Amino acid sequence: MKYDDYFRSELTRLKDEGNYRVFADLERERGAFPKARNHIDDAVRDVTIWCSNDYLGMGQNPEVLAAMHEALDTVGAGAGGTRNISGTTHHHVLLERELADLHGKEAALLFTSGYVSNWATLGTLGAKIPGLVILSDALNHASMIEGIRHSKAQKVIWKHNDLDDLEAHLMALPANAPKLIAFESVYSMDGDIAPIKEICDLADRYNAMTYLDEVHAVGMYGPRGGGIAEREGLMDRIDIIEGTLGKAFGVVGGYIAASADLVDFVRSFASGFIFTTALPPAVAAGACASIRHLKASAAERDLQKDKVAKVREKLDEIGIPHIPNPSHIIPVMVGDPVKCKFISDTLMDQFGIYIQPINYPTVPKGTERLRITPGPVHSEADIERLVGALCTLWTQCQLARQPLAAQ
Amino acid sequence: MKYDDYFRSELTRLKDEGNYRVFADLERERGAFPKARNHIDDAVRDVTIWCSNDYLGMGQNPEVLAAMHEALDTVGAGAGGTRNISGTTHHHVLLERELADLHGKEAALLFTSGYVSNWATLGTLGAKIPGLVILSDALNHASMIEGIRHSKAQKVIWKHNDLDDLEAHLMALPANAPKLIAFESVYSMDGDIAPIKEICDLADRYNAMTYLDEVHAVGMYGPRGGGIAEREGLMDRIDIIEGTLGKAFGVVGGYIAASADLVDFVRSFASGFIFTTALPPAVAAGACASIRHLKASAAERDLQKDKVAKVREKLDEIGIPHIPNPSHIIPVMVGDPVKCKFISDTLMDQFGIYIQPINYPTVPKGTERLRITPGPVHSEADIERLVGALCTLWTQCQLARQPLAAQ
Ligand SMILES: Cc1ncc(COP(=O)(O)O)c(C=O)c1O
Ligand SMILES: Cc1ncc(COP(=O)(O)O)c(C=O)c1O
Repeated sequence: MKYDDYFRSELTRLKDEGNYRVFADLERERGAFPKARNHIDDAVRDVTIWCSNDYLGMGQNPEVLAAMHEALDTVGAGAGGTRNISGTTHHHVLLERELADLHGKEAALLFTSGYVSNWATLGTLGAKIPGLVILSDALNHASMIEGIRHSKAQKVIWKHNDLDDLEAHLMALPANAPKLIAFESVYSMDGDIAPIKEICDLADRYNAMTYLDEVHAVGMYGPRGGGIAEREGLMDRIDIIEGTLGKAFGVVGGYIAASADLVDFVRSFASGFIFTTALPPAVAAGACASIRHLKASAAERDLQKDKVAKVREKLDEIGIPHIPNPSHIIPVMVGDPVKCKFISDTLMDQFGIYIQPINYPTVPKGTERLRITPGPVHSEADIERLVGALCTLWTQCQLARQPLAAQ
Repeated sequence: MKYDDYFRSELTRLKDEGNYRVFADLERERGAFPKARNHIDDAVRDVTIWCSNDYLGMGQNPEVLAAMHEALDTVGAGAGGTRNISGTTHHHVLLERELADLHGKEAALLFTSGYVSNWATLGTLGAKIPGLVILSDALNHASMIEGIRHSKAQKVIWKHNDLDDLEAHLMALPANAPKLIAFESVYSMDGDIAPIKEICDLADRYNAMTYLDEVHAVGMYGPRGGGIAEREGLMDRIDIIEGTLGKAFGVVGGYIAASADLVDFVRSFASGFIFTTALPPAVAAGACASIRHLKASAAERDLQKDKVAKVREKLDEIGIPHIPNPSHIIPVMVGDPVKCKFISDTLMDQFGIYIQPINYPTVPKGTERLRITPGPVHSEADIERLVGALCTLWTQCQLARQPLAAQ
């Protein structure tokens, strides 16, 4: 076997299919975000970012940055070990307490990322609980899918957000089989929200545990930023709440919050938690400051809601189609991979607007889109420029508009 | 099923077996490392850390900290997205170039941790290359084992560092089957070093790719800190070099360095790389500064070698048994889990010395040990205190000493 030939041919195939990813090389300007510089070869160009998951601009919040600076000054850069071997620092301990409090749980456990928290927790529960069946929403994130697959537990996929289908599967399983229902609150690509209460009702009826990924909701929803489950008063009905520190909280890392025993169980058995260097204390300190800030302040959330509504309204005025979901994510539908990439490239080249195209396999073919995430950091002028540019490109690409009467 | 009862009973079993882990809650003092404060309930106590993997004290190196401060000031806290969706920053690009240069490879790819780099790379190569057989050293790290397992590729385990056994397995496989030999340079718990050249010779003979985990060697060995393969002039014979930014480099993160096509292949197909928030730019900046420093400066490495030699010599003088390996890791052998934990607890309580006990399942039963990692940051007085304390406890626990004549 010629290994290099194989790699090259697979890459060529990806390029031919239009699925080869090119990363934009960005440099933010603190205090000026969503403005950033885009490096292309040796040139640099100013852009406005419209597709960040730093949803609330907390990545430049002064309290977050001050906490990180202070931790660097007092304790240094890295943790220097796994959590068990010299890598648990006081900043980790405080952050885990803060997270448990945020979700009204007895305990929380920090992972190096949201990906690892999903993968390691589902992987461990599925592998260790004898006979566990995991009922997984069809649109669950890759990290949950990989964790379930890794666990080798029996897996049942239920139709996305479909209570009848979920119930049919629950009913078909033996009453005494241990069960776990795994789902998300806000789904990242469509921006739709799960019927959490009804899923919890089913879980009660069939004695299943519930596992909720609130990655796109923590910091964003609920009076203290606890997520959709907090907003709907349902946190105590979820066994395991999983979240990230890398999106609305603006830093990096992932976690679960649950009962003390469950957290201790995962802490004690999850390979992906045990055998890896702990996050730097400065990261933990920054995340902690961000959570505390968003527990007390609704200003960022309120302003974001305004901006999201404004963008939707302006898109509607000119008939640009977007999914009318109840969340902060605005998927502007293009429905063609080549046009989607062309619009994204032209936005960048001619308008200084950066929105990564979302194509297959991240979304189904025919639903290619621009995923727009307005935040409190976007100005009215930014919005005007965005919508104006989209209007121009919609005409240029001869893309269909919504009938205006239907708005 | 009563889920909580299950978790509790498994935790009880772990405690009964003596394998329940209690994390020390530490707070370093920048500039004073290896000194730290140990939080116990509401009390705080001064300790000297002797088991950190911040091997060279780079976690408090002024250049590393300055780079992190500067990145926080200029670009903010988090990356705000996955690498593909707005999360690639210029700091990531520069770091990947630095890593490729460090290992003399065309390209490098950054992951959120060394764990994820092993898991995602081996998982992707094993799953995607049709018919790949992975030949894995019996003592490979959990992250490699989980990656191979996840890939569902055929796996062959060869006896640790045993060339004859490796060759027997290579010979037994079909000549045209694609093969990958996965191994480490410095093994973390015994501190022994793989016969890299001879393994590469076998790889050539049987047309296998080579995958080398240099997690405990990068920054530490070779004229520029490129690892054991650099020291031995073998980097160009290894197809994939994997490393961490969380140990000798003192920050956090993981990576691979390889040919441009191989790196692009993993970049394009590895779920664990694609679907996760990128590391904060400040982390990338700190790691970059650390690598650059250790490329140019051998002072830390030299001083560390002195300290390691000094500790070994003092242990030999009083007959305390340790594995005589060619690396910087000093495994002091206790050989009993209860005594190992007792010595560790007493070192902490009575001597202010922190060394985490290493028990089963991290090491085989009967080989329980204290894994000591002397660094340039440890003073002569620290060494005297450590060896004095061990001497006292060895007598107290009635542990066997080496016959002094044999030293
Ligand atoms: C639903 C969902 N869960 C988990 C993750 C992973 O979180 P993290 O980025 O912290 O790894 C993501 C995205 O990255 C996500 O969209
Ligand atoms: C041999 C080896 N490989 C990989 C890892 C994982 O690296 P990281 O700590 O960066 O996740 C470790 C330890 O943590 C290790 O000992």
